[in-house]
Amino acid sequence: MALAWPIGLAITALLIIVAISYRQTIYAYPSGGGSYVVARDNLGTLPGLIAAAALLIDYILTAAVSLTAGLEAIASAFPGLYPHRVLLALGLLLLITLANLRGLRETGTLMSIPVYLFLVSYLPMLLIGASKLFLEGPASLAQVAPPATQGITTFLILHAFATGCTALTGIEAISNGVPAFRPPEAKNASQTLVVMALLMAILFVGSIGLTQYLGVIAGPQETILSALARKVYGSGLPYLVVQTTTLLILAVAANTSFAGFPRVVSIIASDGFLPRQLANLGDRLVFTNGIVLLSLGTGLLIVLFQGNTHALIPLFAVGVFLAFSLSQAGMVVHWWRNREKGWSTKLVINGVGALATTLTLLIVGYSKFLEGAWFIIALVPLLVTMFFRIKAHYNQLRKQLSLAGLPPSLKPYPPMRVVLPISGVHRGIVEAVRFAESFARHITAVYVELEPGQGEHVRQEWESWWPDIPLVVIPSPYRSIVGPLFEFLDKYDSECNDGQQAAVVLPEFIPASWWHGLLHNQTSWLLKTALLYRRRHFGFQGVIIDVPYHLKR
Amino acid sequence: MALAWPIGLAITALLIIVAISYRQTIYAYPSGGGSYVVARDNLGTLPGLIAAAALLIDYILTAAVSLTAGLEAIASAFPGLYPHRVLLALGLLLLITLANLRGLRETGTLMSIPVYLFLVSYLPMLLIGASKLFLEGPASLAQVAPPATQGITTFLILHAFATGCTALTGIEAISNGVPAFRPPEAKNASQTLVVMALLMAILFVGSIGLTQYLGVIAGPQETILSALARKVYGSGLPYLVVQTTTLLILAVAANTSFAGFPRVVSIIASDGFLPRQLANLGDRLVFTNGIVLLSLGTGLLIVLFQGNTHALIPLFAVGVFLAFSLSQAGMVVHWWRNREKGWSTKLVINGVGALATTLTLLIVGYSKFLEGAWFIIALVPLLVTMFFRIKAHYNQLRKQLSLAGLPPSLKPYPPMRVVLPISGVHRGIVEAVRFAESFARHITAVYVELEPGQGEHVRQEWESWWPDIPLVVIPSPYRSIVGPLFEFLDKYDSECNDGQQAAVVLPEFIPASWWHGLLHNQTSWLLKTALLYRRRHFGFQGVIIDVPYHLKR
Repeated sequence: MALAWPIGLAITALLIIVAISYRQTIYAYPSGGGSYVVARDNLGTLPGLIAAAALLIDYILTAAVSLTAGLEAIASAFPGLYPHRVLLALGLLLLITLANLRGLRETGTLMSIPVYLFLVSYLPMLLIGASKLFLEGPASLAQVAPPATQGITTFLILHAFATGCTALTGIEAISNGVPAFRPPEAKNASQTLVVMALLMAILFVGSIGLTQYLGVIAGPQETILSALARKVYGSGLPYLVVQTTTLLILAVAANTSFAGFPRVVSIIASDGFLPRQLANLGDRLVFTNGIVLLSLGTGLLIVLFQGNTHALIPLFAVGVFLAFSLSQAGMVVHWWRNREKGWSTKLVINGVGALATTLTLLIVGYSKFLEGAWFIIALVPLLVTMFFRIKAHYNQLRKQLSLAGLPPSLKPYPPMRVVLPISGVHRGIVEAVRFAESFARHITAVYVELEPGQGEHVRQEWESWWPDIPLVVIPSPYRSIVGPLFEFLDKYDSECNDGQQAAVVLPEFIPASWWHGLLHNQTSWLLKTALLYRRRHFGFQGVIIDVPYHLKR
Repeated sequence: MALAWPIGLAITALLIIVAISYRQTIYAYPSGGGSYVVARDNLGTLPGLIAAAALLIDYILTAAVSLTAGLEAIASAFPGLYPHRVLLALGLLLLITLANLRGLRETGTLMSIPVYLFLVSYLPMLLIGASKLFLEGPASLAQVAPPATQGITTFLILHAFATGCTALTGIEAISNGVPAFRPPEAKNASQTLVVMALLMAILFVGSIGLTQYLGVIAGPQETILSALARKVYGSGLPYLVVQTTTLLILAVAANTSFAGFPRVVSIIASDGFLPRQLANLGDRLVFTNGIVLLSLGTGLLIVLFQGNTHALIPLFAVGVFLAFSLSQAGMVVHWWRNREKGWSTKLVINGVGALATTLTLLIVGYSKFLEGAWFIIALVPLLVTMFFRIKAHYNQLRKQLSLAGLPPSLKPYPPMRVVLPISGVHRGIVEAVRFAESFARHITAVYVELEPGQGEHVRQEWESWWPDIPLVVIPSPYRSIVGPLFEFLDKYDSECNDGQQAAVVLPEFIPASWWHGLLHNQTSWLLKTALLYRRRHFGFQGVIIDVPYHLKR
């Protein structure tokens, strides 16, 4: 318990150092300077990608930890909710995801309400607690502490640490999202950052101090802050308000990830290190794919860890401090290179920041290695490798899609051979035959016979309608359609020996309503997919022509 | 408790009546005479479909009840398994499903092993129990009965009833699957039926009698038969053997559904009352789709009822007796119409059968209405309505696909207009342009511009390669591709006023490996689906031409 106080002060100091240090980043990168951008621009691609990997992990962890902790807060007030906290956390996640997909940024003021509510309910609690402490004197620990104090100390320190880390992620999100602030963007962002860091420091030091000096002990299914609020306010309405606003502010913290993650992901993706879809704005001008990706990752973590915040914290800390160290180091290089007015002071400030976060990174990585830090230390190189492989694919793609080397005037194709698979002789194939006849050099109809004898029947009908077009009947005793058809196509193409692959004209009738679709084989869909992905033996690629016949009812 | 004995005898009598009655059906319908076929042929389509609906529900219930009861048997011996019985039942279901998908029918002898094992372990138990009873005299109930005897009686009767119904489903499966027996099929099937009914009667009467006279009481997580076996054998190896073989024989009972359900479903589907896919044999000559459907239904029931057999039984009984009554009534009509040798005796036998099952149906339907029978009574008409709607769709389809009324010689299409959506000017669109040039009357390239300014860039590149083909740039500020393209197509088609819909030629590059697919937008897939299903304003339908360009790496 004696450890809680110095550790709390150390974390507060770290918070303040990082905040001051990041204030400089905001002014230096008014267009958004997340760890990825700063590290990439000043240290190079590899350090940038390492920071990126750490950040992506961290945003997902922040969302998961915030939601889980929020549900723990509300379950402390309503113990009946405790067994359902995983499900409730997932429900809240879904809500936040949907809100973000609809474009929550417009309603940024809405997000500030929980923050004010929290301050209005939480700051008075600290004041009342402090006056109580002043009037009644500190509680002797021996009076209240149950035997398992050791466990509770660890619990408290971890909790303090997690809160600190969440605050740090908030700082990263601010410096990454400068353009989203009202003009003057850099100034407003930096003010927000300072206010947030100060408030965090007050809340943090206040809560730790009160918890320790009032001898607050949490029950097994209660958070330490709930126990503190109960001690100060009793179990009445003010207590319930504090717990509810705690849930709300933690939801806002989770939402920070939803603001930051898609943005970072889109920057990485537009550099070609992540799938391009992640760089695209969706219909509602939000990064739809990034939001969905974050939501899936967060949900997975909540389920995997079954709402256990403490297991997530060592993972969390490594990520956040890795990204911060690289960003700060990048800023040091930035000042060294640019040497604008007052560069040396700024260099020293960022240097102290870099040193502090690197030191924390080493301590946490070493002491928590077996408790989960190893996982992040292993995951970061994997992600970085993935980034490079994706980039390599896009580079390859550019070369393969280049028009360089093609003759300046391209001739149209000579007329093609056409293969026309039919499922029988009926109205649905008529348009396909007519279309094939309008351009093909030679048409071969193909019928795959599943029931012996049917082929002969189909042949007679076919010949009464199209006597000039040859029909090939392929028996398929094992009732597969795709396999025998592909064998036929390969054989036919190689026999014709004209260097072409036959075009496949697929007649397809489209049902009038979705449920009618359930009443038909999806053979044409299967065939199209197979033709598109599996038919690639030849240099020249086969064309697939879909001739739909729409049913009226 | 006094009720158990007469009810047991009544069920046994019912079993014997039904068995004799069905023996006649087997000889009259050597090609397989399930309730659906018999009711359809003799009473008409509607009664046939009612029987069919009842049967389908019943097969699913049989599989679910057998698996759940089997797991209850084994959990009685190993209480540690009790909390996991739902999961274990699902695992067993998966195993049986996979075995059937691979074509289990070939290994029918394998299925007989559990039956023999069960008889070898269970019959001696009845003998030993009977001799114990003979030597020691019946237990006085007062000595052993705990206060909750009333509940246990209900439990026992329900259990007895369920066992009886399972046996009845077995009878239905035999008469439905006559052709699967060795020749002479009818004779072997009828012998199997008689042997099964006799054994069932012995086991049934024996177990009920012993349970009652030995005063056997089951614990809360134990089956009554487990309690009986424990009473007779103690808790040693013989007891464990009995419980294990009970599980095995119940798995065989579940497997009966897997033999019967897909067969009935395929008969109904080939009459056009269910989706046609269910009538098709798969690659391994089993009714793949029917097996999968049964497995999904069974799994759903097991999960919904959380392994509670008793809740399922009222549902079960209504279905089985409804199907049986219709089948027996159908046989009465059959004999009346055919009047072959000895028809009057046969008519009387089936008449008695019909009367007995109808009576049971009414009793169960009335007394168990609120306990779940209402569900079946409501579900059957729903299923029958579905059958008729499916049939109506297929009739409609036949009319719409008919070639009647088409002119005897069809002219090929005049050359078409082509619209060519491009994602940029690159190697991947070259083949598409060349192909379009080979047959089109007029080509229009279209570029949907997501980022302002990109369109101009694309236009310049396009004009340097294909100056003769017009390019239309459509700005899309809301970043949707499908919507603006469809608007363009509709406008273009209506302006051209030639009664045609333009063919759409889609250039598509196909990545070399599946994971590369994740790195690209699935725009062409989206477009193809939309073109196929949503573009249906015109009388004449638009052709979709997919020109793949396969990437090498």
